[in-house]
This record gives sequence, C-alpha cells and structure tokens, in this order.
Amino acid sequence: MIPPLLAVLLVTAAGTVSCSPRRHPLDPLSAVELTAVRSAVLASPLVPDRPISFHYVGLDEPDKADVLSYASSSSRRRPVLPRRAFVVARAGGRSHELRVDVTNTSAPSVASHAVHRGAGFPRFTTEEMAAAAGLPPSYPPFVESVRRRGLNVSDVGCGVFSMGWFGGEAGHHQAGGGRLTKMQCFVLGAATANFYARPVEGVTLVVDLDRMAVVGYRDRVVHPVPEAEGTDYRAAKVGPPFTGPVTAPGVVVQPEGSGVKIDGRVVRWANWEFHVGFDVRASTVISMASVYDGDAGTRRQVLYRGFVSEIFVPYMDPEEEWYFHVFMDAGDYGLGVSAFPLQPGADCPANAIYMDGLYANADGRPVKAENAICVFERYAGDVAWRHTEAGVPGQLITEVRPDVTLVVRTVVSAGNYDYTFDWEFKTAGSIKCVVSLSGILEMKATSYTHVNQIKEDAHGTLLAANTVGVYHDHFVTYHLDLDVDGTENSFVKNTITPMRNTGDPATGGADTPRRSYWTVRREVAETEADGQVNINSSGGPADLLFVNPSKKTSVGNEVGYRLVPAGATASSLLADDDYPQRRASYSKKQVWVTPYDKSEKWASGLYAEQSTGDDSLAAWSRRNRRIKEEDIVLWYTLGVHHLPYQEDFPVMPTVSGAFELRPSNFFERNPLIRAKPPSNANFPNCSCHI
Amino acid sequence: MIPPLLAVLLVTAAGTVSCSPRRHPLDPLSAVELTAVRSAVLASPLVPDRPISFHYVGLDEPDKADVLSYASSSSRRRPVLPRRAFVVARAGGRSHELRVDVTNTSAPSVASHAVHRGAGFPRFTTEEMAAAAGLPPSYPPFVESVRRRGLNVSDVGCGVFSMGWFGGEAGHHQAGGGRLTKMQCFVLGAATANFYARPVEGVTLVVDLDRMAVVGYRDRVVHPVPEAEGTDYRAAKVGPPFTGPVTAPGVVVQPEGSGVKIDGRVVRWANWEFHVGFDVRASTVISMASVYDGDAGTRRQVLYRGFVSEIFVPYMDPEEEWYFHVFMDAGDYGLGVSAFPLQPGADCPANAIYMDGLYANADGRPVKAENAICVFERYAGDVAWRHTEAGVPGQLITEVRPDVTLVVRTVVSAGNYDYTFDWEFKTAGSIKCVVSLSGILEMKATSYTHVNQIKEDAHGTLLAANTVGVYHDHFVTYHLDLDVDGTENSFVKNTITPMRNTGDPATGGADTPRRSYWTVRREVAETEADGQVNINSSGGPADLLFVNPSKKTSVGNEVGYRLVPAGATASSLLADDDYPQRRASYSKKQVWVTPYDKSEKWASGLYAEQSTGDDSLAAWSRRNRRIKEEDIVLWYTLGVHHLPYQEDFPVMPTVSGAFELRPSNFFERNPLIRAKPPSNANFPNCSCHI
Repeated sequence: MIPPLLAVLLVTAAGTVSCSPRRHPLDPLSAVELTAVRSAVLASPLVPDRPISFHYVGLDEPDKADVLSYASSSSRRRPVLPRRAFVVARAGGRSHELRVDVTNTSAPSVASHAVHRGAGFPRFTTEEMAAAAGLPPSYPPFVESVRRRGLNVSDVGCGVFSMGWFGGEAGHHQAGGGRLTKMQCFVLGAATANFYARPVEGVTLVVDLDRMAVVGYRDRVVHPVPEAEGTDYRAAKVGPPFTGPVTAPGVVVQPEGSGVKIDGRVVRWANWEFHVGFDVRASTVISMASVYDGDAGTRRQVLYRGFVSEIFVPYMDPEEEWYFHVFMDAGDYGLGVSAFPLQPGADCPANAIYMDGLYANADGRPVKAENAICVFERYAGDVAWRHTEAGVPGQLITEVRPDVTLVVRTVVSAGNYDYTFDWEFKTAGSIKCVVSLSGILEMKATSYTHVNQIKEDAHGTLLAANTVGVYHDHFVTYHLDLDVDGTENSFVKNTITPMRNTGDPATGGADTPRRSYWTVRREVAETEADGQVNINSSGGPADLLFVNPSKKTSVGNEVGYRLVPAGATASSLLADDDYPQRRASYSKKQVWVTPYDKSEKWASGLYAEQSTGDDSLAAWSRRNRRIKEEDIVLWYTLGVHHLPYQEDFPVMPTVSGAFELRPSNFFERNPLIRAKPPSNANFPNCSCHI
Repeated sequence: MIPPLLAVLLVTAAGTVSCSPRRHPLDPLSAVELTAVRSAVLASPLVPDRPISFHYVGLDEPDKADVLSYASSSSRRRPVLPRRAFVVARAGGRSHELRVDVTNTSAPSVASHAVHRGAGFPRFTTEEMAAAAGLPPSYPPFVESVRRRGLNVSDVGCGVFSMGWFGGEAGHHQAGGGRLTKMQCFVLGAATANFYARPVEGVTLVVDLDRMAVVGYRDRVVHPVPEAEGTDYRAAKVGPPFTGPVTAPGVVVQPEGSGVKIDGRVVRWANWEFHVGFDVRASTVISMASVYDGDAGTRRQVLYRGFVSEIFVPYMDPEEEWYFHVFMDAGDYGLGVSAFPLQPGADCPANAIYMDGLYANADGRPVKAENAICVFERYAGDVAWRHTEAGVPGQLITEVRPDVTLVVRTVVSAGNYDYTFDWEFKTAGSIKCVVSLSGILEMKATSYTHVNQIKEDAHGTLLAANTVGVYHDHFVTYHLDLDVDGTENSFVKNTITPMRNTGDPATGGADTPRRSYWTVRREVAETEADGQVNINSSGGPADLLFVNPSKKTSVGNEVGYRLVPAGATASSLLADDDYPQRRASYSKKQVWVTPYDKSEKWASGLYAEQSTGDDSLAAWSRRNRRIKEEDIVLWYTLGVHHLPYQEDFPVMPTVSGAFELRPSNFFERNPLIRAKPPSNANFPNCSCHI
C-alpha cells in the first residue's frame, strides 16, 4: 500500500520550503523587499552621508491586533497588511533609524527617520570586521610585535572584540566621533584550523571602525604561542586512523512519509501550527504557535512570538587583555548572520526538512542563509505517557504512547562557540527550548605547562601546555510572548510553602501525628516588580505560570502554561555596580515579565554594542508597569557557569540546558489520552539498501 | 554488501540475552541458585517456624577486591568466586537474615543467620498483598460501609498502604508482635481500569499481615465516588475514533546492524563496557562500567555499581486518610518486582534488545521478570560536538559528530506511578541517568465539583468533579559507587565564588576598570559532613566532582568525573522532626558521600517498611567517617515537587529529570575528537516495506 522509498525520498529531496505565492504578515523580508529597502534608503535625502552601511534590516512587523485579525479571517477575506522594514544604517558617523514601507516594492518609501542620540552602536557588519582584519598587518608596531614573537605576519589574523563600556562617555554615540573596537590576534597558518588555541597573547589594538584606522595599540606581555599539535578537529587532520569510539550508523525511516506540512513558512504538524521566521539579529523566530484541542474541537493560541533575544557571555579574567571579553552575541554580532548551513545527516537527521533565512549585508543587498533552519520529527525512543496496571485482578494492563516530537533547529556559530537552538513541539502541548553548547573555548596563552607551576588565580583551567581555558558564563535570554488562549494573561507564582500541622482541628490542624506538609501559596503578579524571579532563591521553589484568568476549565481552573526549567539555571554573579552587569542587569534573574510593547525586543537594548544599560530589559521594567490581565511577555534566561575541563579541548562535547513551557490546566485532561496506540510497533521488514 | 534485512532482524529477533556458560561474579542469582537458596532455608534448623515467606533474596556479592581482581585476571586464570545469597525471610513473626552459599547448587548451605531486632520490616510480598486484598470483603463493617455508599462489594478492591512510623514502638519489631498495615479501597468494576480515580474515600482498614486478619477499621467520612467516565486510558476504551494528535510512524534502521554486543549480562558498545544486573528491590543494577580511552590505549574504571536505592514519596495531606501516604517504593514494595514487561516498539524502540530479571517469590521460588530491561542505541538527532569556523580566510569549515548513545531502560510501575529509568551511556564518556514519571496520580474523592466551592486548603488540585490530585514529592535516590580510574577517590567541591577587583595590582587586583568576576574555590571533603550538599543553597553554585588524586593528566589536573544535575533538583520541605522526614532525612540534601561499605545499599535502611530512620543514609553518615582518598560512594537524590494539573488526568504526560556523570579532566582531551565523521549521512535508499 505504501510507496515507502518515495515517501522518504520526497521528504529528503524536498529539502526546502515549498514555493507559495501566499505570504504571511510575519514572513521575513524577501530578497525583492530587501532590495527595495536598500533603494529607498540610498535614495533618501534624510541620509545624505556616504558611505551608508546597513547594520540591521528586519521586518517591522504589523501591529499584533492586525496580525491576529488577519489570522482569524478566512483566507479570502484577509486584509492586506503593510510590509515594512526597520533599518539601522551608519552614515557620517551616525546611526540612522528608518522605517521603510515596501508594501509596493516598486515604490518603496521611507516612512520615518531618526538619528540615534543615546549610548551604544548597532552590530558589527561582516564586511567591516573583514576590513578591520586588514589593518594590523600594515601597522608597524603590530608587525614588530609579531616579529618579536618569531611569527610571520602572514600567519597572524585578528578579530574584532567589542570593547564594551566601562564608564564615562566612551560608549556613547557622539556625532562624528569614532566607533572604536578592540582587536586581538591569533596564529592562523596551515598547521591548525583552531586558531583560538593559538592566541598572540598580550597584544591588543584599538580600531576606529568608522574611519577604519588603528587608533590605539598595546603590547603588554609575551607568552609562548601554544603548539598547533592536537588542536585541529577536522576529520582530514585527525585521521585516518580514526581511533575514537565507533557507533553503528542508524537512520529514522518513516514508512508512511513525513507528518510535516510546510506552506510558505507556516509549519503544520500533529496538533501544532506555527510560523518560522528569521532575523539577522535573532536568527530563528517562532510566531503564532497554536495547538489544536481535540476535546474542545478548536485551535488555541499559545505563543505569539518567541526568539532568542540575547546571549550575554562575560569572561572572568580581570586582566588587561581579558577584562572587556564580555559579549552580547546577538547585539554585537547578530545570531542570524552566524547561522551557517546545517550539515545534513549530522546537524539534523536524514528526515529533516531545511529552510533558509535571508538578511541584508552591509551594502543592503540580500544574502541567503542557506539551510539555516531544519525541521524534523524526532523519534528519540521516549515515552509520551504510559501505565502498567497490575492491580486489576486477572489482568496485566500496559498502555504506552511513544513520544514523537517536532524540532525546529538552528545552529549559531558565534565565533568560537556553537549554540544549537531547538524549539521542540510536543503533542502533549509542551514547547521545549533546548540550548546545546559546543564549539571551541576562548583560550589564554600562558607560560604554565603544568598545574603545579600555578601560584595565583589563573582565571581558568590549564587545558594543555601554555593553554588556559578561561572561566566564563553563558546567559541565553528568550523573548517569549506567550498568549495563553488569548492575549490577556496574568503571571502567577505558585510558591510551595512548608506548613506545620498543629494536630488540633481547633487551630486548623488535622488530628493526626503528621507534623508537616507543604501547600501552594498562589500570588498573581500585579506589576513588573512582581514579575522578576530568581528561580534558585526567591522565596523557595515555585511553579511559575502564565494564565488566562478569563478562560477556565469546566471545574474552574484558570487555563495556563507553566515554565519548567531543566538545568542551566545559573544567574550572573558579577557585582551590580560592575559595568558588564549594568549593561545586562537582567542576568541576575532568570524570569522577567513585561507588558507587551512591540519595540521591546532586545533584552540588551536596540544598540547593545557598547551599551550602558539605559535601554534594556531591566531599564524598561523599572517603570513597574501593570502586568495583571494584560498582554504580557515572558523573558527567560538560561544560564551556565562554564568551568572548562580538558575534555572541552580542542572542541567541547555538547552541554545542554533547557526549559519547557508546559500546559497546566490548559486542557481539560491529558490531550494525548485519545491518541491512537502505535500499530506497527516492530516494523518487521524495515531494511536499508546501500 | 550489506545484508540489511538480516542485520535488523537479527537484532530484533535475538531479542534477549545470548546464552553463555561463563558467569560473571555479579550476575543475579539464577533460577537454579534461587531454588537452592530456598531448599537451604527450608532445611535449616535456624528457621524452625512455618510458614516461611521470602521477602528478599538477592546476590550477596563477593568482596569488591575479589571482583576487581577477577575482572583484571585473564579469562583462563580467573579465580572461582563464591556464589552467595542474602535472604530476609519472615517466620514466626520474626525477620530472619540468612546468608546462603550456593557455589555448589547441589549442596547449598546456610553460612550465617540472625534475627532482626531493630525497627522496621522487609518489603511486602505480592502474595501477602493479594491475601490481604481478600480480607475486607468478608469483614462486616467494611461490607456495611460499602453498601452505605451504594456500591457492590464485588466491585471494590483494596490495596496495602504502608502505615509508616509515627512515633512510639509501633514500627518496631517485637517478637511475636503484629506486622500491621493500612488498607484503602477503590471501585474496580468494568467501567474503568483506572480505579485510582475512584477511591472509596473515608474508609481505612488496619490489617495484621502476619496473622492475615483485620485488626482495625475506621469509616470517617463519606464522599461521592468520582464517575468512571473519562478516567479510562486503554485504547479499546478511548477509541475509535482516536481524536488525539496523530504523528507519522517512524523507526530507526541500522543498515550495518547493531553496535551492541551482549555476553551473558555484560554489554559492550562503542567505548563502554558494563554489567547489567537485577535485584528484586532495586530493579536494574549497573556494575563495573568502564570506558576505553583511545588516547591512552586502556580501559578505565568509572562506576563500580549503580542502582536506584529508594524512591521516597511523601504526600502533603495531613488528614486522617492521607497523612500516612508516605511511600518508600523500593523498601516497602520493591522496584524489581514492579518492573513489568516492556512493550516492544512503544516502551523501547524497534532496535532494542531485551533482558530479563529474576527474583524469588514469597515461597522462595524463582519468578522471571520477562523483558524487564531493554538496551538500545538511541539516534535522537542530537549532536556530540560540532564547530563551524568562518574565521579562516577563504574557507567555511563545518565539522559535526552526531550523537549516538546507548540506553539501558527499566520501567517500574509502583502501583499508580510509572518510573522509566534510563542509564544512558555517551561516547564522550558521560553516564546520564534519566527518570521519567508517568502513570496515574493518587486522587482523593471530595464533594467539590468546582474550584469556587473550595474555601480551605484542598491539599491538591481539583482535576475533575469530585477528584483532587493530591500534592506530593518524588525523591529518587541513586547509589553510585563511582571508582574514577581506581577505587581511591576524593570528593571535591569547586565553589564558584564572586570576587571583587580592587583595580590595584598592589592589592592583588588588575589595573583595569573591571570591578568583579568569579573564581573557583576548591575544597576537598575530609569527612562525611563535608560530603553533604544541598545543591540549591549550600554556599552558591558549585561543580561537584569525584577525583582520583593519585592519577593526573599530563598537565597535572586530577582525573575526575563531575555531577551535572539537569532539572528535578527539589529537596524535601518536611519538618526535620516530622516522622516521615526522620525516616528519610537524607532527602533534604541531594548529595551525600560515604565511604564504601558493602552493607550500605539502601538509603532508607534494610528494613524500610515502618522504619524509624535509625538505619539509613543519614544515620550511617552521622559517624562522619573519612572520605578523602578513600573508596567512596556518591548518593544523589533527584527530586520533584508535584503540583498536579488537569493534564495529569487520567494518565500523566511524562515529566523528566536527570543528572549526568561527566568526565572532567578524566581524559586528556575530548575523547571524540578522533571519531570518524558520519559517512552515509543521508542513507538515500532507506525504505520500509510493510
């Protein structure tokens, strides 16, 4: 009955999104639209200076009410929503903000314009980082430093490291003033692709990116460059022979074909429907995720928009060459621009479908982020629910429903680090976000070759001779605009509270010898101050929920979704008055809740590079707005304190952290209870012909 | 080249352990050995009373030194190790402890005998629970209570609920005294298999199990029995139609066959080798797990013995019918006896291999726990390590190694709850333990049909009309006898400590504007008091390691493994002076470290049923023995505060918690760096013929 070969091949061969003339209002800007944006900006008298470089071009999404109204209209009666871009471009030493209407791509128009006057800068462009890399080799003091270390200038490459903000006006935008950055250098050469393992320690340049010139230089200390031996990770360099562990190849086969349907960028699978967007700063954006409720016979909203808003990575070495190693990967560099093509069969399994991203380069022209996203059904061998009942006389009942989930994956290679971001949709109604860290450590060259030489704080682990893996944190902040069964939600803290049993009914106790128990103290957050939670310390363990107080189950529980952290719950340990912490002060609490504001997307502020924290999640939240029975947004920060170990060298085995948004009195009962049991449990004739 | 059909079929068809004449010293007792144990006990004049019931029969394992010496000998020169059983049998109202030598099964002999004089009792046997279930229907007050509720006695079944210990001598063994238990009852009937949803609330019996008679009775309060409608979960009862979400069937195909080799009960896969045992109390036992170090060219010890020692489940309702709902699932009932056959293709994927367990019934005769364990290679679509490098001019390097892991799975259905226990072995050297909770809540009948009727603490969530899911905790305690590269290990707490930068080198600061950072304060535990850690509160976040101080990497780091919790880190909130907490006082700290003592297996004590805590992990640890540079054991408790939600009804979607034992300076570098990249990434001709 089944054309199995075809079924599998179709999925694999499809390999990308089907072309569809119908567009979704949250679709990222198309190549034609990006080109139109560029034309409009170049043609605008509002930006007279040249050259113009495009640092951010993204969808200026329509108002939420309009999008929701669009989604709830029948396809024939859908309104035409405007298509607009938000642009940050640099010209004449200024950051220009423009909104460009490209509803008619033949006649794009600038709808608004402003010049940024506050602190901070937009992200570095790939092109200016490449241009900056060309400066040091022709800067004589640098050439001298390299020669003094016995290295060839042609073997040394330098990268742009944001200088951050450490007080004063340094990070503030000044009309015509310089946009400075630091640069540090590594031995590239043919000996290893892992240049991070071979820092030219002690040398720091300061470059003015607007003038594209070296404006500062320091060669403070000389340490041996660690050897290349043992640092490469490319298959062609480590083998043959491949002496590592060997596992049997395996592949998932779907005899009835894929269960995923993709229409444009809308994904439909099992009980889920959602839109997959892409942004140069955020990378993948999940929008309008809704789940079908089989008991109610309706599709119900869960998540209006979710994406990674920032990755804050402070290093823990206060010395001259390291103190400013404090990255805001999304704001400084952009996650979308670092979402490189996924490797089929390795990054994603064979049954994955790939989607592209698109963004504007510094020149404003469209660049395709090919295969930046994969979507696959995950058959991990897990169980969705089960029960064996031995208590019914004469029977042994076993009912099991295996778990199949849908994963939307993006890998962001933010320089040395690789972040795998999974949005995992579960048939039981959960959305699980998983961050898996791999890639390469930032390493510091040192004179140490053995631990017993270390007499003072090395600020890291000696990984190999002359090589310290520096202590650091990763804080990955998600913007999660939950709309639980509608936009008006409240944030509830169900705190688990120890209770004493008095033993006396007269005082409210139970007349039993039990002395203690716990109960749940329910608190509905009124304002933003109530919405900030350090989940490890704020008044004990709690279930944190987004509920819709106007929607109740048949027995009267408010429908909700709750946050279930699963590892990686670290929060920042930096001092509140330290500059990196002021810029990312949200990182001390994993949970923030804000009222929805379309402009509040980036936890580190729109201009994160050299930001001062005056435009940031914590700054917005200081207004202490009402969040009860409002359209509210959850910000969750997943955190890891990373103490390197030798296993992390030369490339780290994956470490994962996760959290789950789990339906909690959202459904009347387990939504999988009426799922069909697996029929061909053994697939006895499955085979593979190579 | 490949005989693919055969390859897959071989694995599936093998479906069990290959027969092997060679025995391993840690193999569980065989059927022949169990039969010999029974004969020896029945024939022994030391146990004159009749009847004799066998409550525990397990391997009395040889001394660790002997087992290690056995393992390191060449197969021809291996010593013959004695085969001995440890037995707890009840006879004449006493708990007898016997060691029986069955090295020669034709001539078994009792090597030692003692009568237990302390508190507590061995686990209930299946047979006595069945016998007890026969008592209420012929107990007139019970019949009257049932009739008064309008129910048929033939529709009501009762189960044994340990009465726990709530002070005084009640829980202490008294020669000839009664071994009492409580019983509570449910409506069985044909209407639903989910009798837990239909409690006969208010009725509690007390039964003397030794005399097998009702000795106490109370009918305190009458509540309506919740309706059967909507409570069943069996496929035949919920459909057709099956209106739940539909996912596409999928199966893992291994074109080159399985990578797992099983010899007796020894599993070899990739770089791992370990032994899979089974015990009536613990269920699956993993022993002598070692990992091959490709760089060193040697196999290195990691875990001597690991198993689930206890599951402590206190409920949070202090009322008469509920205050004693405090379960020690391993100690009261036994996890092995509750490890029912796994359902192929649902509990475990199609490429799983099944293993059996074996235990003695109350009569001492062998019972097979068929397909109680499955072993499968997991192809979940995860990545073991990866890196994309865009920083090398002219190249875009991407190297990815997909993650294939090996899972050893057991599902324990402890009455209403189902615990899926996974031991997941990773090629990068980690052992990950995952507990997945599913099954059915304990429910309390109530007069409430709507939340707005509830005026006082309901001690749970109204899940459906007349049905409260009662608040409770799950504390799953693992016994993990880590032997990191040898038996002499130390326990290290690497506490992450905030530091202030003075900015002045004269005072040890760095001359930079950075004001703070963190560093690692290393502490080696001296005695057991230093080995107790509440990971959520004890002096800040920390990496907790087992190290071998006598083995160092080439740059001088001590080789180690560290504990990485991944969710489910709750600890007990009961008062220290409350009886349940005194019995399981270890549950306030997730981590305990003790010196190895072969007799210290059960965190809740050998006699957990009605225990007082005087024989327990916390009690042993009060001796404050030295744990530095000793053979030490890690006890880790994974905890969940369970606030029920309506989705948990009638069967809970799986909730998981986990922890990982991760190599940390154990290897010189990432042990996967020399693993071969995937070759047939797309398996383009994979298909499935049904």
